[in-house]
Formats: sequence, C-alpha cells, structure tokens
Amino acid sequence: MNNEFDFIHQLFQSKTSVKHPLTQLGNGDDASVHAIPAGFELVVSTDTAIEGVHWPEDFPLDLAAGRAVNAALSDLAAMGAKASWVWLAITGANKEALQAMSLGIVSACEKHQVELAGGDTTRSPAKHPINSLSLTVGGLIPEGKSMCRNQAKIGDDVWLAGNLGLSAAGLKQWFAKQRNGTFVSHFSHIEPLLDIGSFLLAQDIQCCIDISDGLLQDASHIAKASKLHINFCWEALQKLPSFAKLSVDFNEDVVQALMLTGGEDYALLFTAPADKREHLEQADLHLIGVCQQGAGVSINQAGQAMPVKKQGFDHFA
Amino acid sequence: MNNEFDFIHQLFQSKTSVKHPLTQLGNGDDASVHAIPAGFELVVSTDTAIEGVHWPEDFPLDLAAGRAVNAALSDLAAMGAKASWVWLAITGANKEALQAMSLGIVSACEKHQVELAGGDTTRSPAKHPINSLSLTVGGLIPEGKSMCRNQAKIGDDVWLAGNLGLSAAGLKQWFAKQRNGTFVSHFSHIEPLLDIGSFLLAQDIQCCIDISDGLLQDASHIAKASKLHINFCWEALQKLPSFAKLSVDFNEDVVQALMLTGGEDYALLFTAPADKREHLEQADLHLIGVCQQGAGVSINQAGQAMPVKKQGFDHFA
Repeated sequence: MNNEFDFIHQLFQSKTSVKHPLTQLGNGDDASVHAIPAGFELVVSTDTAIEGVHWPEDFPLDLAAGRAVNAALSDLAAMGAKASWVWLAITGANKEALQAMSLGIVSACEKHQVELAGGDTTRSPAKHPINSLSLTVGGLIPEGKSMCRNQAKIGDDVWLAGNLGLSAAGLKQWFAKQRNGTFVSHFSHIEPLLDIGSFLLAQDIQCCIDISDGLLQDASHIAKASKLHINFCWEALQKLPSFAKLSVDFNEDVVQALMLTGGEDYALLFTAPADKREHLEQADLHLIGVCQQGAGVSINQAGQAMPVKKQGFDHFA
Repeated sequence: MNNEFDFIHQLFQSKTSVKHPLTQLGNGDDASVHAIPAGFELVVSTDTAIEGVHWPEDFPLDLAAGRAVNAALSDLAAMGAKASWVWLAITGANKEALQAMSLGIVSACEKHQVELAGGDTTRSPAKHPINSLSLTVGGLIPEGKSMCRNQAKIGDDVWLAGNLGLSAAGLKQWFAKQRNGTFVSHFSHIEPLLDIGSFLLAQDIQCCIDISDGLLQDASHIAKASKLHINFCWEALQKLPSFAKLSVDFNEDVVQALMLTGGEDYALLFTAPADKREHLEQADLHLIGVCQQGAGVSINQAGQAMPVKKQGFDHFA
C-alpha cells in the first residue's frame, strides 16, 4: 500500500458492488454526478457518529460503522424516501480501525442496496486518536410527497412502527458487561425502517419522524413543528411487544424510562387521520396516542396525566 | 440555551439567510428536500477538515471552518457545477469552538450564496477534545457536461487557473510564527474558483481537477484516469505570477517545492485541445504543459527532464 489513495481504493472501491443506475459518475473524481428523474425530488440527510460518544470505546468498530450508516438511512425512512446513495467522511486512529469500519459500511450499503458514491478518508491527529464517521445519505421521493414534522393535524392518531427501548436496554447491558444480553443485538444492529417508510408514503401519511432521541423528545419535535399537543396512552404503550420483552429483565420504572426516553430506537412515529385506522392496524403498526390542541407532549395513565422525569438523550444537557 | 436543539438553532438557523429556490424543505426536519430541474444533474462531494491535521491548533477556528467550506466548494468548481447546498457535520470540543466555527461557515455560505441545508452538531468526547468538520456540498450541472479526470486526450494542452504554492508558503510562515507573513492570507482564505469552473464548462472543457494535494500529485490523477502522460514546462511555471511572488521570500529550490508539491492551492488544472488556445489565453489562464502518450507526470527544464523530490501531501505516507 503506497499511499492514501491506494489505501482508500483498496478499502472501498474494490469491495462495494452496489452501483446505482442513476449515477453518472461514481466514487473517484472530484465529485459524484447523479441523474434525478422527472417527477422526483432529492432527499438528503447528514449524521455523525463518534467513538466514546455514539458508541462505547470497547464496541466492535465494524458494528459501530454499520450502525452509523443505518442510523443515517433511518432519516430517509422517516421522509418516505427510497435510499440511493451514501457519501462517507471517515476518520480513523489507524489503518486497522479504518479497515474494520469499512467492513461495516460496505455491509450496510450492500444490505440496503445503496451506493457508496464518494468519500473522504482521514487519519485522526496522533494526539487524539479517535474514530468517527459522518454520513450523508441521499434518496429519491415523488415530488411533494415527503413526510414532514409539521404536517400533524389536531385529531390525528399517533402511531408507532418498530421497537421502543430495546436499543437503550442493549447499551445498558453492554455497559454492565453482559455482552450476550438479550437486548445487545438491538443496540448493535440498527434496522432502518425503509420499507415501512415507503408503505406509509403509499398510504398518504404526511407526518413522520424517526425516534433517535427517545419517544418523548422526538414527539415534541412533531408537536412543536405542527403547533399542537401530543398525548400518549400508557396502556397502549404497555401493549407493545417491546414492553413485554423489557419486562422480563427490568422493573416497570426502568421499562418506562427505556421506552419513553431511551433513544436510538430508529422506530418511526407518525400521525394519521382516524379514517386510516382500519388499514394501518392490519400492518403491524401501533396506535399509541392522539394529536390535540395545545403544545408539548404528555402521557395519560388510567385517565390521569403521568409524571415523566427524563426528557431524552441530549449531548449538551 | 436549554439543550442541543436550541443551540443548533441559534448557531445556524437564525444566521444563514441563503435559501436556495429549489429547496422544498430546508434545515430542521429529518432531511432536506430539493427539486432538481429537468436537464440538470446533481453533483456531490464530501470533505473533512480536522484540527491538528488540516489546520494548526493555534489557527483561528472561524477561519479554519471557512476554509473547510471553501475547500469543499472547490470540488464543485472542478466539475463545473453551480454550487447550491451544504450539509454540515460539525464536531466541537465545546460550545465556544462550535460558535467560532459557525461564524466561518455562515460567512462562506453567504459569500458563495449556498444554502446550509442540513447538519448534525456533536460534541467531541471529553477525553479527546477536538474540532472537526465534514462538509457535503451539492451543485447542479447541465446533463452530461461535468468535467472529469478521465477526459484528457493525447495532444491536449494542460492549463492552470489560480495560484500555486502561495497557500503552502502561508502555512510555512504561520508555523514560523510570521503571523503577518505575505502569504498567510493565502492559507487562511481559500477562494474556490466557481466562476472559472463555470467559464471552463461554457468553453466545452471536458477534463479538470482542483489542486488540493499539490500540482504533481493532482496531475498524476488526471494522467492515471485518462491513461496518458502529462509533461509540464518549468519555464512556463516560472512565468506564473506565483513564481514571482514566492521568489521575493524564498530561494528557487523552495519556490519549486512549494509550487509543485505544496498543496492546498485550490487552483484548477484542466486540459484543452490546441484550437482553444487563443480564447483561453485571453482569460488569465496559464498554459503550463501538454498531454502525451505514456503514463505519470514529468517536468522539462531547458528541454531536459527535471528531477523532483517530494510527491505532494499524503496523510498516510
């Protein structure tokens, strides 16, 4: 391996087989070039993951990098977009770390058939040997159809697709050295709900968000953007498969905290008018709340407002 | 400032006034959404800049961040694209660092009228307080017109737009504590040659690269991709304004090293058939070499091959 350029080439260009049919010029020039078909819009999101912040320092780097790609793709799922491209900015403490991360990236790209369309590989400074990735993901969506945070309407039902709290429980087990804990795989392996996002788009759902910072925190983003109040029903949340699974290992207080504020779920939270209820109930989606006049987020238990302590993951709190 | 979300909002959303007319949904949702007009393609590039690697630790953070945006935009210039959007992944050691970097980012976006369409703000781990940015830039280009590395033809002239070696000289002065050195501003302030890129595209130029790793290194990328040899003429390089400027402060050996291998010039190197010579000469562009049969890069001085030592900046050398 002579230099950076050969190294990058070896890491990625020879390993990724996914080439998107709309790519006119792929990885290897100053930039990549892509055709966007008439009737479609481009959807773009950027996410960073840093060792010691977004994953524990003793966590395998290939899994950490795969998580980062999948977490970024989850933002496309929340918009209802078809994931197409990833542009990667990767920083490694050494070549071995870059190689390990490349395995996870390539594997996530292949699983979801997205093209690694470009990137920049750098080594962290000797003084601060740190591994991190920033991923920009691009997808396509029919014109004017993207699901946004500000499209919830008063009276809409609030629905959930995916798990709540299992990833946070897995991380808790990892930190407690329970490396084979029941939930560890939910932290290790993020599944971006791209197919469900596409299904929701086909059902004319207009408001959706992915849950990365915890149910309450992300619901508050919808509430704020749509200028309304979201009221969850604890009894409905107790009926979720996640509640039963978590209750095997944790008491109800812990289960509640994990489900409401755990974060990193990459579930989808969306709203829909009541007339869509019958159709959505057939699709393994869970009705957990309602949009009301007002602001903020609350939870009802047995008809009473339930007190909630922690308000979700926050880097700067 | 209550939390990360308010902080990000304050940093960027209130400061950037540039809204691109093709943006359907800007910063603040899970992703941004953009219309791409018929007849155009999307051009995307990603670049990372890290404190202690891409800029000295005692360098002002606002300038460092502005440099990073401009360096990323230079890749769009090299393709001939119209710069439109920036997606930012920024990592800061603390809020003050993030605030300083945000000033440079906002200022660069406004100068070039690109929209800050999305981003992710993170804090570096306490153990490794480090500042870095990854920038993904997006632009538009008429279908099939992007200037690529693999389009040079044997017999083409090789042209330069911009400076050679001035930025490397500025960094040298910075490290020598000459903070007001003649060349420091060439390191501090990168000027992406977006207008020249557009001009070249209008002249039907098909092969172009921006010089980030040094003239010889980047020329070798064109030579490799286009399967030919590039021969530079030292006498032509000596006629460049950069040579005269550098010769005031440095001896010819140093000037040569700075110009050939200095890096971070963000000049444009392009090739053109000889019949475009008359038109290009009117436009402050410099004819410095020729494409020949063969491989690699060489320099002629008085008709003889000139020996060159260092082959450009390389993170992993």
